[in-house]
Amino acid sequence: MLDGLRAAARRSSDDKALRAVVRGCSRLLSERAEANSVAIASELIDAYGRLPEAQRAALFQVLASDFSPDPKEVLEAAVAYAQAPTAQHQVRLSEAAEPPRQELLRRINRAPGGTACLIGMRRELLALLRHHPELAALEADFLHLLSSWFNPGFLRLQKVDWESPAQLLEQLIRHEAVHAIDGWDDLRRRLLPDRRCYAFFHPQLPGEPLIFVEVALLPEMPATIAPLIAKGSEPLSSKQFKVAAFYSISNCQPGLRGVSLGNFLIKHVASELQRELPQLKRFCTLSPIPCLLDWLLKSPDFEALPGVKKAHLPRLQAAQAQLRETFGAELAGLAQLKADDALGEPTQQALLSLCAAYLVYQSPSADGDPVARFHLDNGARLERLNPGGNLSRKGFKQSAGLMVNYLYDLAEVENRHELFTQGEVAHARGVAALL
Amino acid sequence: MLDGLRAAARRSSDDKALRAVVRGCSRLLSERAEANSVAIASELIDAYGRLPEAQRAALFQVLASDFSPDPKEVLEAAVAYAQAPTAQHQVRLSEAAEPPRQELLRRINRAPGGTACLIGMRRELLALLRHHPELAALEADFLHLLSSWFNPGFLRLQKVDWESPAQLLEQLIRHEAVHAIDGWDDLRRRLLPDRRCYAFFHPQLPGEPLIFVEVALLPEMPATIAPLIAKGSEPLSSKQFKVAAFYSISNCQPGLRGVSLGNFLIKHVASELQRELPQLKRFCTLSPIPCLLDWLLKSPDFEALPGVKKAHLPRLQAAQAQLRETFGAELAGLAQLKADDALGEPTQQALLSLCAAYLVYQSPSADGDPVARFHLDNGARLERLNPGGNLSRKGFKQSAGLMVNYLYDLAEVENRHELFTQGEVAHARGVAALL
Amino acid sequence: MLDGLRAAARRSSDDKALRAVVRGCSRLLSERAEANSVAIASELIDAYGRLPEAQRAALFQVLASDFSPDPKEVLEAAVAYAQAPTAQHQVRLSEAAEPPRQELLRRINRAPGGTACLIGMRRELLALLRHHPELAALEADFLHLLSSWFNPGFLRLQKVDWESPAQLLEQLIRHEAVHAIDGWDDLRRRLLPDRRCYAFFHPQLPGEPLIFVEVALLPEMPATIAPLIAKGSEPLSSKQFKVAAFYSISNCQPGLRGVSLGNFLIKHVASELQRELPQLKRFCTLSPIPCLLDWLLKSPDFEALPGVKKAHLPRLQAAQAQLRETFGAELAGLAQLKADDALGEPTQQALLSLCAAYLVYQSPSADGDPVARFHLDNGARLERLNPGGNLSRKGFKQSAGLMVNYLYDLAEVENRHELFTQGEVAHARGVAALL
Amino acid sequence: MLDGLRAAARRSSDDKALRAVVRGCSRLLSERAEANSVAIASELIDAYGRLPEAQRAALFQVLASDFSPDPKEVLEAAVAYAQAPTAQHQVRLSEAAEPPRQELLRRINRAPGGTACLIGMRRELLALLRHHPELAALEADFLHLLSSWFNPGFLRLQKVDWESPAQLLEQLIRHEAVHAIDGWDDLRRRLLPDRRCYAFFHPQLPGEPLIFVEVALLPEMPATIAPLIAKGSEPLSSKQFKVAAFYSISNCQPGLRGVSLGNFLIKHVASELQRELPQLKRFCTLSPIPCLLDWLLKSPDFEALPGVKKAHLPRLQAAQAQLRETFGAELAGLAQLKADDALGEPTQQALLSLCAAYLVYQSPSADGDPVARFHLDNGARLERLNPGGNLSRKGFKQSAGLMVNYLYDLAEVENRHELFTQGEVAHARGVAALL
Repeated sequence: MLDGLRAAARRSSDDKALRAVVRGCSRLLSERAEANSVAIASELIDAYGRLPEAQRAALFQVLASDFSPDPKEVLEAAVAYAQAPTAQHQVRLSEAAEPPRQELLRRINRAPGGTACLIGMRRELLALLRHHPELAALEADFLHLLSSWFNPGFLRLQKVDWESPAQLLEQLIRHEAVHAIDGWDDLRRRLLPDRRCYAFFHPQLPGEPLIFVEVALLPEMPATIAPLIAKGSEPLSSKQFKVAAFYSISNCQPGLRGVSLGNFLIKHVASELQRELPQLKRFCTLSPIPCLLDWLLKSPDFEALPGVKKAHLPRLQAAQAQLRETFGAELAGLAQLKADDALGEPTQQALLSLCAAYLVYQSPSADGDPVARFHLDNGARLERLNPGGNLSRKGFKQSAGLMVNYLYDLAEVENRHELFTQGEVAHARGVAALL
Repeated sequence: MLDGLRAAARRSSDDKALRAVVRGCSRLLSERAEANSVAIASELIDAYGRLPEAQRAALFQVLASDFSPDPKEVLEAAVAYAQAPTAQHQVRLSEAAEPPRQELLRRINRAPGGTACLIGMRRELLALLRHHPELAALEADFLHLLSSWFNPGFLRLQKVDWESPAQLLEQLIRHEAVHAIDGWDDLRRRLLPDRRCYAFFHPQLPGEPLIFVEVALLPEMPATIAPLIAKGSEPLSSKQFKVAAFYSISNCQPGLRGVSLGNFLIKHVASELQRELPQLKRFCTLSPIPCLLDWLLKSPDFEALPGVKKAHLPRLQAAQAQLRETFGAELAGLAQLKADDALGEPTQQALLSLCAAYLVYQSPSADGDPVARFHLDNGARLERLNPGGNLSRKGFKQSAGLMVNYLYDLAEVENRHELFTQGEVAHARGVAALL
Repeated sequence: MLDGLRAAARRSSDDKALRAVVRGCSRLLSERAEANSVAIASELIDAYGRLPEAQRAALFQVLASDFSPDPKEVLEAAVAYAQAPTAQHQVRLSEAAEPPRQELLRRINRAPGGTACLIGMRRELLALLRHHPELAALEADFLHLLSSWFNPGFLRLQKVDWESPAQLLEQLIRHEAVHAIDGWDDLRRRLLPDRRCYAFFHPQLPGEPLIFVEVALLPEMPATIAPLIAKGSEPLSSKQFKVAAFYSISNCQPGLRGVSLGNFLIKHVASELQRELPQLKRFCTLSPIPCLLDWLLKSPDFEALPGVKKAHLPRLQAAQAQLRETFGAELAGLAQLKADDALGEPTQQALLSLCAAYLVYQSPSADGDPVARFHLDNGARLERLNPGGNLSRKGFKQSAGLMVNYLYDLAEVENRHELFTQGEVAHARGVAALL
Repeated sequence: MLDGLRAAARRSSDDKALRAVVRGCSRLLSERAEANSVAIASELIDAYGRLPEAQRAALFQVLASDFSPDPKEVLEAAVAYAQAPTAQHQVRLSEAAEPPRQELLRRINRAPGGTACLIGMRRELLALLRHHPELAALEADFLHLLSSWFNPGFLRLQKVDWESPAQLLEQLIRHEAVHAIDGWDDLRRRLLPDRRCYAFFHPQLPGEPLIFVEVALLPEMPATIAPLIAKGSEPLSSKQFKVAAFYSISNCQPGLRGVSLGNFLIKHVASELQRELPQLKRFCTLSPIPCLLDWLLKSPDFEALPGVKKAHLPRLQAAQAQLRETFGAELAGLAQLKADDALGEPTQQALLSLCAAYLVYQSPSADGDPVARFHLDNGARLERLNPGGNLSRKGFKQSAGLMVNYLYDLAEVENRHELFTQGEVAHARGVAALL
């Protein structure tokens, strides 16, 4: 560890602050600290908070290099375990292979404000990661621990409504990522009895939502977003509720990226609503397709679509030709479509076919549509495509105004998730008919 | 894993229940489960709850053998990491070396009641451990995860008083391990304003104390326990409070044995009290010495005491001789001492000297007095020996009526803990004078 | 007012404290106090708290005499109102006729602890009333104001269970007036899921129950009290609940005597239980008949019973003769009855007939059985007599072991109450058959 | 009562609804209702809620005429009491003189929603009062009872901040009557740590503020309102707090007009702040003078000012002459003053002198400035006049931009209130110097 400390000192020879933080880390990990670790961790958190940005990046380098497992010890432990996989050898292996920085992070977490500090550290770390692949193992440790601590068993589901604290509601306005909330009046409408909002909270971060979802209670599965977010609409009576439509889900903590929250949230909310309103028959979404146009404009090669059926190819190619006819060879016109442009029936149909192909065949790949991948991986079914679902600028820019419903059937999510992990997208007949 | 499953099946060929639970474990860990893991974990928890005791033991064997890291993969990862300790190799190593059962336990923890189930499992596991060393690595995984989740940052300190729910107070009566609480009237006295009780709670176990400490607020450091726990005593006014004496600390969750709670509890309570009552000048304990008599009766060889000073030996040997003279060569009389037996001054002095030697020299060893080891490791100082401190049967049986004060000086705990880890026991002059 | 002050001073010429309190009362009522009345009321409350008992009695005399309406002003206002009942004259009348001490009490009530002080004052006042009829108007003012403030609209119904604060439960043990609670284990049984306890609280007296009722949830209307209060009985499952039996109702605040609470409590609890447990079909009591033996031993003259039917007289006289034959002319044996004395069938029948007559004919009179009068006035029906209902010493002493069920049918309470105020007791056929 | 019923029926012969409500009132007051009064009151509240406005006015007439004391009974009781003022006669007098409708209102108050209903009734009643003096006694009964129930002892002081429910904050925005709150951002600034807001609540009206006050914590007594309500201003640190300035107080319940709330609120908040922030040295207001211009424009006759000192007259008359010179004989220019009109020193001085005279001499009269009367009657001192204190349109229209500080010295409020009731206004030397 001394080498690393020296190196750190060299890298920022004039930086006492960084050296102090690195010393604080070593001290907190030491035997000596055990009697007083909460106090020491508190000091360290304060010191980190005062560190300039550049020094924080340097600190991550030190954590990545100096607080790693000792290769020699690991190798010895692995050899012993391979020769005789006894309990003792296994314990020794675990100890040798776990990076010491994991214990460091656990000890930081002991202090008041520790969890918030770690989430903040990870947010900064994630921003650095793209250009610093050498920080990947450090980031893996953060993700590993935060996933364990932000376990859904430890999270609290809370209904958010007009009785909630203003400071919480303000955070919703700030973090809403799908359909922006236009001030307090807009928010109030989204909290009336035929709209619902639920958020996850962690006991260590009181008053700070981690993620929240907005739900509309409706007589039928919605095809367009506008009525759901209209400020002045009249609330429905609870007798008319048949369908719960999740129309927006937003993360509030960039430092928790990759920690599974949304999947648990949707299912928890669905059972909560089912319990409260037994009259609800379906749980679905009304979702954007943020990357549809990007894909279309790249002239996708349908034959290369994973799992595509030969029999479908002619129709897809014809659809593509139809679009080129309407919007030009480069589809330039498609990207400039506006709300009042009436599309002819053949063009609309072509668009729907291509969208169905995109969602059904492309979603299982890492470069599939992220929203589709989220819901399909959660075990939802691709239920319906809705032309003209979102007539806003954003809606046209992302997906020529198309929106999509995913259906959550709790009895089927396990099967459908498995299918999806095997590359297959569960979809309704109406979608199949488009292919 | 198949071998293990077959073996488990063989061991309890007629036991469908165990096989179902093992299948549940595999299922919960599978890719397929991810979309529905909370529901699957809930089922598993129920199924475990219905498992007979013998099958639970068998289950632990399966978890210990079949849900372990793969030795071959580990070795390959360790070799790669030793050759090039890159981030990628490190990530691969972490994944290979972590026993899959850790993820299993984390997933169980996702469900409502998951945490309580895991604590219950560990309680049973600990009971088996003595005769089943092969379960040591499994138990290490439990301890590792529970320590991370029962992190003091996640615990809530709560004052317990006569306004607390009866069901909570009842648990105090049940779990008090040091000075038994003799019913509700006794408890009420221990919660009057010159007595305090604080407990740690975890958000996942509402209403269930993990550990609690009882404190007496006094004008001076107490020498005897009787007045502190006298049911009918008159409460002191807060003007007289100078000293906070921790006179009892009890764990309520056997399944959390080894998870550090007491150390954090004492320090948290000390700062809480200091904040509320700035007039408090000292924080100390009045503690039993549960193993003193055991040690004395084993005719300890003083020369073998670690770190003992040569110069002290004559006095210790003389003290031992004095005791033999008074109580017989085997010290049989010492073990039968009663409250009203008056000890002569030389015998009393001999006892004190030997007790001081026991606490000062023996405590750093694993077979030292457990209460002494707890407080000294927390960074407390051995402050004073109190002859006749506990005149109850238990007091005489454990330590011939002797009690001891440990002093918590928050500014010094870090140093003193470090000394202690190096084998040295911080002690007051009065104690040194006895050696 | 000067005369009264002088008189008060004379009566306790050496008592500065009383004079100070009386001065405090005058001051609090003065114009000058309005800007600071809460502070002045607080001082007055403290001063009253320090007053010796004798001086408190003297204070009540002063309040009764000096803080009364001015007869001359009242008469003038009444004459004016009689001549012309205008709004102005009515306002003037109200102002003149209201005793100034009512405003005094309202101002005392403004301070923290004011309500508790007034309740305490009234408790002492009630104790004096019997020998001091001149305090009746003062006491009427207290009752008037307390009834207005302990309005059921201002009360909070709270379920009391094993999660309730120990200090609250302790008050239940202390105040239970019907079937004594024998310590904490007994209480715990009475709070298990097939027993319920509800109490009324007032916002000004947090943590202090005003009145509470105990309920047993049962498969049928109970005939004996023993199983309901047996400590070790096994709780029933909620599937078996058909009947809610109120088996004990106790006041906790003697200073609120005469303020209607019990009537509202029973009905509020009944609707609460009906809402929570729709399977409940009947709401009844199992009640003592505390004054039955007193009445029987006084050789009641049946012909003088109000409303008694001529046709019933022979049977009642025969029953009385039967008792005299069994227990002696003075019924001395009846008063000494014990649990294991087997009564012959004719004697038992005679007892039941007389009891039915007592409850049906005597209850509407002021000297009827107080428990019967409470429930019948609430609109309950006399439902069933239960020989051997209470085999305790108290049960025999009060009513030769008899208990009675009153039935609450919320749809009928209005009619039955009205009947009762007209001197008629609603009763079931089974009871009629005994007459 | 029959006559009244007939009359009511006649007045609205076709109005069954009114007759039903009147019958409901009679029923609720009847003996028969006692067993079920909460349910009956609930029905009555519902029925009242459905009554058209005109019928409500008619109902008030019925309550005013038919539910009044019986003149004959009152007269007899008054005569008896005048002849012998015994307790019995007093009790009889109280019963005879209290209007039966008071008991009616108390019974309505028993039901859920009863208190809110009564407040709503009174709001409508107050609106009718000006043209219906015959309702004055009914209104006096409402005020009497509401004052008793909205006793400060029953009110809860609650700090309102950014953690408060949005629905509560929204009510503040709606009810702020002094310096309008311009949306949520404005409100947020008024709740930052150097601004405070406190409201009174009643247990029967949860979530509904009765009255609230806004406070600025400042280094010195403020002279102008703009910085206090500037949206973008930087919050001060608590170290700079020396003065708490109440700058706005607003009622939220028109139906509680005349019930003393503001006086208690200010004093309660002052002690609360003093407790929390011992560094606060002064409690004052920064208040408007809403009626100054009205007074000036009426050409007040200074010699007729109650209590004016002869010696002051020349200066006042000179000041008036100066104003006339500046603004014309009718002072037309004064009424049209704007923020950027620079007043010459002599004019400004003249204005201040006249304002001082207005507040010092006119306030004790019923037609004095209402804000001044409120604070002076509370026992505050007239502390300082601030030219240019409020440069808004409203500020100029009310008081030519002048504002005033009233000082609350809790040790002096009793004296100063008494002085004020005797017609004298406590004022600082600086104010005296202006006269």
